Amino acid sequence: MSGGSEDPRAGGGDGQQPITAAAVAAQVGGVLVGDGSIEVRGIAPLDRAGPNDLSFLAQLRYAQWFATSRAGVVLIAPELAEHAGAPSTRIVVAKPVDAMVTLLARFHRKEPRAHGVHPSAVIANDVRLGEGVTIEPFVVIGEGAVIGDGSWISAQAVIGAGAVLGTDVRVHASAVVYPFTELGDRVILHAGARVGREGFGFVPQDHGVVRIPHAGRCVLEHDVEVGANSCIDRGSVDDTVVGAGTKIDNLVHIAHNVRIGRGCFFAAGVGVAGSARIGDGVQVGGQAGIGGHATVGARANLAGGAGAIGNVPAGETWSGYPARPHRDHLRAAAAIARLAKIVRPLEQLVSNAAATTRAVGAPDGSAT
Amino acid sequence: MSGGSEDPRAGGGDGQQPITAAAVAAQVGGVLVGDGSIEVRGIAPLDRAGPNDLSFLAQLRYAQWFATSRAGVVLIAPELAEHAGAPSTRIVVAKPVDAMVTLLARFHRKEPRAHGVHPSAVIANDVRLGEGVTIEPFVVIGEGAVIGDGSWISAQAVIGAGAVLGTDVRVHASAVVYPFTELGDRVILHAGARVGREGFGFVPQDHGVVRIPHAGRCVLEHDVEVGANSCIDRGSVDDTVVGAGTKIDNLVHIAHNVRIGRGCFFAAGVGVAGSARIGDGVQVGGQAGIGGHATVGARANLAGGAGAIGNVPAGETWSGYPARPHRDHLRAAAAIARLAKIVRPLEQLVSNAAATTRAVGAPDGSAT
Amino acid sequence: MSGGSEDPRAGGGDGQQPITAAAVAAQVGGVLVGDGSIEVRGIAPLDRAGPNDLSFLAQLRYAQWFATSRAGVVLIAPELAEHAGAPSTRIVVAKPVDAMVTLLARFHRKEPRAHGVHPSAVIANDVRLGEGVTIEPFVVIGEGAVIGDGSWISAQAVIGAGAVLGTDVRVHASAVVYPFTELGDRVILHAGARVGREGFGFVPQDHGVVRIPHAGRCVLEHDVEVGANSCIDRGSVDDTVVGAGTKIDNLVHIAHNVRIGRGCFFAAGVGVAGSARIGDGVQVGGQAGIGGHATVGARANLAGGAGAIGNVPAGETWSGYPARPHRDHLRAAAAIARLAKIVRPLEQLVSNAAATTRAVGAPDGSAT
Repeated sequence: MSGGSEDPRAGGGDGQQPITAAAVAAQVGGVLVGDGSIEVRGIAPLDRAGPNDLSFLAQLRYAQWFATSRAGVVLIAPELAEHAGAPSTRIVVAKPVDAMVTLLARFHRKEPRAHGVHPSAVIANDVRLGEGVTIEPFVVIGEGAVIGDGSWISAQAVIGAGAVLGTDVRVHASAVVYPFTELGDRVILHAGARVGREGFGFVPQDHGVVRIPHAGRCVLEHDVEVGANSCIDRGSVDDTVVGAGTKIDNLVHIAHNVRIGRGCFFAAGVGVAGSARIGDGVQVGGQAGIGGHATVGARANLAGGAGAIGNVPAGETWSGYPARPHRDHLRAAAAIARLAKIVRPLEQLVSNAAATTRAVGAPDGSAT
Repeated sequence: MSGGSEDPRAGGGDGQQPITAAAVAAQVGGVLVGDGSIEVRGIAPLDRAGPNDLSFLAQLRYAQWFATSRAGVVLIAPELAEHAGAPSTRIVVAKPVDAMVTLLARFHRKEPRAHGVHPSAVIANDVRLGEGVTIEPFVVIGEGAVIGDGSWISAQAVIGAGAVLGTDVRVHASAVVYPFTELGDRVILHAGARVGREGFGFVPQDHGVVRIPHAGRCVLEHDVEVGANSCIDRGSVDDTVVGAGTKIDNLVHIAHNVRIGRGCFFAAGVGVAGSARIGDGVQVGGQAGIGGHATVGARANLAGGAGAIGNVPAGETWSGYPARPHRDHLRAAAAIARLAKIVRPLEQLVSNAAATTRAVGAPDGSAT
Repeated sequence: MSGGSEDPRAGGGDGQQPITAAAVAAQVGGVLVGDGSIEVRGIAPLDRAGPNDLSFLAQLRYAQWFATSRAGVVLIAPELAEHAGAPSTRIVVAKPVDAMVTLLARFHRKEPRAHGVHPSAVIANDVRLGEGVTIEPFVVIGEGAVIGDGSWISAQAVIGAGAVLGTDVRVHASAVVYPFTELGDRVILHAGARVGREGFGFVPQDHGVVRIPHAGRCVLEHDVEVGANSCIDRGSVDDTVVGAGTKIDNLVHIAHNVRIGRGCFFAAGVGVAGSARIGDGVQVGGQAGIGGHATVGARANLAGGAGAIGNVPAGETWSGYPARPHRDHLRAAAAIARLAKIVRPLEQLVSNAAATTRAVGAPDGSAT
């Protein structure tokens, strides 16, 4: 697979063979309006698209860009099909965004994949390599490791001793799988991910501290994805486990002994402290933090930047730091804004009331 | 040391030789109750332990797990020794958690270590390598670097020109030690750590900005540990220094010219801006930030997510953003919650008072 | 260029040839007071400088350090030139800090640079390498990639298939340029930077989710700098673009489809969510976050730790989470501090007022 490297600077993320408007209409099940022979080679938003690009208009709010767009062909929602705009070749389709997503794979340039083991790789004698694996240059695989069928280990990646990788695992460049880590089938580790490091645990001793030995494993179940430069530590007395289908973005930290359920999403920059318990289907916004030993119930949502200490109930949306129910957070923010305008008269009222109370000889003049 | 790779999937973080309950009791100085010949091969929490696992019960709150645990042997606190529960082989010991920590090293699978210099490593001619070093595949060491006795440099690590590493230093896979950086004895750099980068400093010029040359060093004193993918920049006019015994977790940023004392702990995701001064024994919670030129006094604590601007006094615990004393932060949060319930009547009181004041001809009706 | 590796432990970031006080004075256009023949070899702050170091005193507040400094030579502001202090060799100059910055390049130890392609590098057949490039050990360059004249690719870096690098690009050790990424001239990627990863986008399907193919590019324009372990994802339907001259510190995340203007500064730990739009000259403080589809106007400032949701107007300074104008944030913080002291009397006033209202037969006693 060559990835279309003939002209890697072609605009709009393109580089593949061109496709006609008629063929696009057929593929997405849309109705063609205009010249079906026009060819496009890439995809771009309305304001950036050129004559060789396919674009889309799904909502009226973007119609301003449609008016002057140079896009060759536009996927357009039925209610906007007659809207005035520069592009004359239109494909009317019920859900233009969904149609676009199905087309992205057509315009997406795939990374070329070599097959077999590059001669520079250093692989211990007793490593078990599955069928159809790709091992790129300078990969190092430690003794006793197992690499499942179809797995693809990119350049400079390091797979530690005793690590077990399932089938069709993808380890991108420079990622490190620490010894004895276990990855299920179809797990993806992006560049620079670090999984299975001994966690951050110390015990005090006479002279300073010593590391707690980490006897637990780091287990990523099937279909887990770990973003670039994200870190997942192994457990000390328990395993660290990320449940099947959970997706983790870049620069996320998961500490030792953490248990994460299935089908969760962790946006970039999230930190999860040690021994936290996170249920299935939880969604965590960017840069949010989850405290040590905290629990987050199934299908809960944490807003970006939230800091969860203690327990977040299942199904609820929490925000702020310390996190609390999102509606309480909004209510408090609104209250502060209103009260900030009347601080001085409120102080005056309290002062007047205290003076009145004193004047009538109250037995207790305390004001707080 | 082979690391028990015969069966790397053995449960509970195990893989070592089995040990009998009697031997465990002897090792931790506990009193054996039940069958001392039972063998365990791993450690696990009560709810996950199987017949081959050792577990522990230190607090009544976990007794629910004890009732049905399948653990082969349980370390148990004296006051819970008679508690009803499934495990019949028990070792009564005063501090079950401490006992467990001492046993972890027994069950911990050590990463196998090769000796000597792998032939693929690229080492400049004038590098000084100490006795007993391990240099793994594809390591690159620049000219004039010094590697102390017993140090272990893992695969793909890069040690820059002129860098000086003490004895028994451990550099994990893919870590980068920039040129001229200095690491004391027993320093540990986890995978992907970057130490000694020229810091983020620019000066405006006629056409854009230019980088400030960084003439300062990056010095990590003895026993410093730097987590996976953490970054510590070198200084510009001063050195960046991390004091002896300070431990830094994953994904932490330490900027140029920062001075950190001895025996500090930085949890994951912390950021320290340029020229900050941090005393001895400071503890910083996850994702906290310390501003440029801020000072944090010895033994101060910053809560997770805190943002310290200015100065944090020695020995105090601060939280929030901007950080302030933790008790003030809690008090303010409680005040907001209570006031949010009476915003409207408070506004009404102020409004009524203003009306009354106007009615009696106050010379100044201003309300703020 | 040897980088002065004769004595890499020389103090104060030095290692270069010594320079006399007279020569320093000539270089910065200052007036020499004292012995012009004194030689210095390094730069250090007053409190750390020794007899071989140059230091500086620009403000009276640092005069306490001047009193006892051991610095051999001191750059000093005119108004402080007569100040009592230990250092007797002084160079009087209008702006000592600016003078110091110009001297830093003199004392800065440059990393030695080899020339040509190291024989261990794995470079695909059709890669175009410019004139005067440096390719260090274990670099991997994929098919169809283009490396501009004068570029320097450090050890272990990976340049993906179809990537296009301009002239004088600097890729530090272990950085990864994903396939089809485009870097302008003089772009700098620090160690472990990951640029061009397919972004974090998924669409639900019958059984779980599938990744959205990312047909967009990742484009870094001229003079962009990306810090250590920072991550910039490629676009899905749009490109991710970082404008010319923008500088990004360590551990920053830029998501897919983001557009960043020219001449911006992103401090360490910042996260920018998908499809955000950021104007020219924006400055973003450490650990701040910018939400998905948010817009930040030209020359706006976001304070450290701020979380911007929605739109930040051009030229304004915003802080807090959710971010709002900095003055509003300060005002609210002050209001909370004052009101927290009178919560109970305020509650009492509301309670009294409600009782009075009820007593006079108000038709509606609701208090909120």
